[in-house]
Amino acid sequence: MRHHTLPVSPATVHWGYFSKAVAPALTLRSGDRATIETLTHHAGDDYERMIAGDPGAESVFRWTAEHKAVARRGAGPTEGPFLRGSGEGLGVHLLTGPVAIEGAEPGDILEVRILDVRPRPSCSACHAGRCFGSNAAASWGFHFGDHVEEPKGREVITIFELDTAGEPFARAVYNYVWTPQTDPDGILHPTIDYPGVVVDHAKVRERHGILKDVRVPARLHFGTMGLAPSESDFVSSIPPSYTGGNIDDWRIGKGARMYYPVAVDGAFFSVGDPHAAQGDSELGGTAIETSLTGDFEFVLHKKRDLGGTALEGLTHPMLETDDRWSVYGFTFPNYLAELGPDAQTAVASHASLDKAMRDAFRKLRRFLMTVHGLSEDEAIALLSVAADFGVTQVVDANWGVHGSIRKSVFTCTGA
Amino acid sequence: MRHHTLPVSPATVHWGYFSKAVAPALTLRSGDRATIETLTHHAGDDYERMIAGDPGAESVFRWTAEHKAVARRGAGPTEGPFLRGSGEGLGVHLLTGPVAIEGAEPGDILEVRILDVRPRPSCSACHAGRCFGSNAAASWGFHFGDHVEEPKGREVITIFELDTAGEPFARAVYNYVWTPQTDPDGILHPTIDYPGVVVDHAKVRERHGILKDVRVPARLHFGTMGLAPSESDFVSSIPPSYTGGNIDDWRIGKGARMYYPVAVDGAFFSVGDPHAAQGDSELGGTAIETSLTGDFEFVLHKKRDLGGTALEGLTHPMLETDDRWSVYGFTFPNYLAELGPDAQTAVASHASLDKAMRDAFRKLRRFLMTVHGLSEDEAIALLSVAADFGVTQVVDANWGVHGSIRKSVFTCTGA
Repeated sequence: MRHHTLPVSPATVHWGYFSKAVAPALTLRSGDRATIETLTHHAGDDYERMIAGDPGAESVFRWTAEHKAVARRGAGPTEGPFLRGSGEGLGVHLLTGPVAIEGAEPGDILEVRILDVRPRPSCSACHAGRCFGSNAAASWGFHFGDHVEEPKGREVITIFELDTAGEPFARAVYNYVWTPQTDPDGILHPTIDYPGVVVDHAKVRERHGILKDVRVPARLHFGTMGLAPSESDFVSSIPPSYTGGNIDDWRIGKGARMYYPVAVDGAFFSVGDPHAAQGDSELGGTAIETSLTGDFEFVLHKKRDLGGTALEGLTHPMLETDDRWSVYGFTFPNYLAELGPDAQTAVASHASLDKAMRDAFRKLRRFLMTVHGLSEDEAIALLSVAADFGVTQVVDANWGVHGSIRKSVFTCTGA
Repeated sequence: MRHHTLPVSPATVHWGYFSKAVAPALTLRSGDRATIETLTHHAGDDYERMIAGDPGAESVFRWTAEHKAVARRGAGPTEGPFLRGSGEGLGVHLLTGPVAIEGAEPGDILEVRILDVRPRPSCSACHAGRCFGSNAAASWGFHFGDHVEEPKGREVITIFELDTAGEPFARAVYNYVWTPQTDPDGILHPTIDYPGVVVDHAKVRERHGILKDVRVPARLHFGTMGLAPSESDFVSSIPPSYTGGNIDDWRIGKGARMYYPVAVDGAFFSVGDPHAAQGDSELGGTAIETSLTGDFEFVLHKKRDLGGTALEGLTHPMLETDDRWSVYGFTFPNYLAELGPDAQTAVASHASLDKAMRDAFRKLRRFLMTVHGLSEDEAIALLSVAADFGVTQVVDANWGVHGSIRKSVFTCTGA
């Protein structure tokens, strides 16, 4: 077992997409561990608190008229002229990686164990050692178009501070309504339409004293984590799919074991979209977006060894925690394959919890039948009386419902 | 404070509907308590274990060619000729009540505290003292039409036994595929289409040894509990609505406090559909349907006293537990008012989790803004990072999503 470290830098991150085509930032073997830094793509909402003085964050977010450290941000076009910028915001998450796994091949399963998760303290002079995050109530939120207070159609940023002295929790510091921001290339962003735009605080009005007496219990986790799909060289980081990605389940934190189907040689694992807390549904469009560092262990399960294990027949991401198994249903189990050449844009217009529920049901039924050897009748009865389905997210184009079953239900089996 | 008892009998139950028009089985005052027996309408799936020798259950389920103790079962027609039977199965749940609350008027809120819940032991010679329940994987289940094993389109009954020696759990005893059953009036029931049909076990094949090594943790609760709506004299017990009813949330058990808007003078509370365990979604159509007895306390909150309390502006059912508040979103918040004269049948053809999610979001946002005094921007941020939305049920025509917020989020307020 080797222990690797993967700090953030323009050379170790890719922005807004999963890709089988970019060079690995790290290559390791099954059984290896790695400490991996991740940055929130919302750090520009408060540059002073979340970027300033932090060499890694500064290096990635560096963007002047002369130099943009990470030019491509998204799976869209990289040749201008741009309406929004290179990559055109088709995908938004800063991801660290890819991490290639030696010997991984399509048909294998990659297990990723999250051993620890730690917030990334501010390095700025005024806030050094404290931890901050940003929540955006954005145009892609479930609430949008349903405002009850004026002005309708507004986007709102809320900056939180994370208190880690005891049981960690977050507290709001201030919020502001998004105002049009001009990026260093001169492109105007009237809405939150491109990642990494640093907000000019002279152009927004900070409202302090908000959410008084409210403490948000922390749920440190990685919103986006998974493998490169095979269908396309550049795949938007927004819709989750069969190799994982932007699942946005807050249970994917310390102690979690995620299992992903390998779709390309080397697996090409990437992780980012770090969150300090999120509710089931991620209603307004984002969580408390906070840079985090994780300790991970990688275990490759070869296709030939899957029979008779909990991974037999697995074709989608699955979570194991101390007390339960969870599968993830999506509107489309594999939207890239199902929706054809325009899949990456078309997926957003079909969002449906009903379809995601259908998919989650089928995946959990298969798990019970294949792994636990139940008949369909046994599986349906057990799903009715002991399995819980929840709304994972309604903001990631390919909406999600998770289905969970407690391990304690199975009294005499290891699985 | 007086303590009342309400045992089950043909005079104290009504079957398949809520009603403002039937005579109260009990009248009490705010602050009173009552021990109320409830029967599962699925007891006929195993008469020997769940009815035989039990005077209350026998009296309610009594049905011969000469005498049907409770003739009407549902909100449908009571004049024949019948395809399925009186009430025609438009509504299925055996409910105890109504309980009238002195002085309750439309605009008030009735609080119902569940102080204790106990299973109802079998009285039959062979099984005396043991507790049983039935799960039906039925035609109205989410899985139906999506079978993978043959014969497709089957309905399956699974009989469970509840073990209450320690931490209570249920274990499967046997299951069988539903076969056509003829009721005492000579009507054939090829499917589970009418409540209270006693299954002839000579016509089904019991399969024992199922779900071996599986223990289902108990979640004793009442699937159906609420008040009579004002819109109609007889309202099907199946779709939940603005006065509660068939919410099917397993959290509505011991320690829960439910709040319901009063729609008619006297409130007319009824309770039934007792469950030993259910998962979020109630996937196959039912829970472990088990007769239960509850101890309840009733507190009437007059309209004039609601301002400044957690009940201000409440127009829908709400749950309070030790650690959280939950609201219930439905496809239609009030399908009776929204869908017109055919509402009770039309509602089933519009089931949508997406709409239920929308409704749950709006209800929880209103709670945060009205009760906790948050601005909309504060409420949306908090919903994103700290509220959890789950699938309550996808089997009750008016599908449900619940939205919950932990009390611990509010550090300095009583609400």
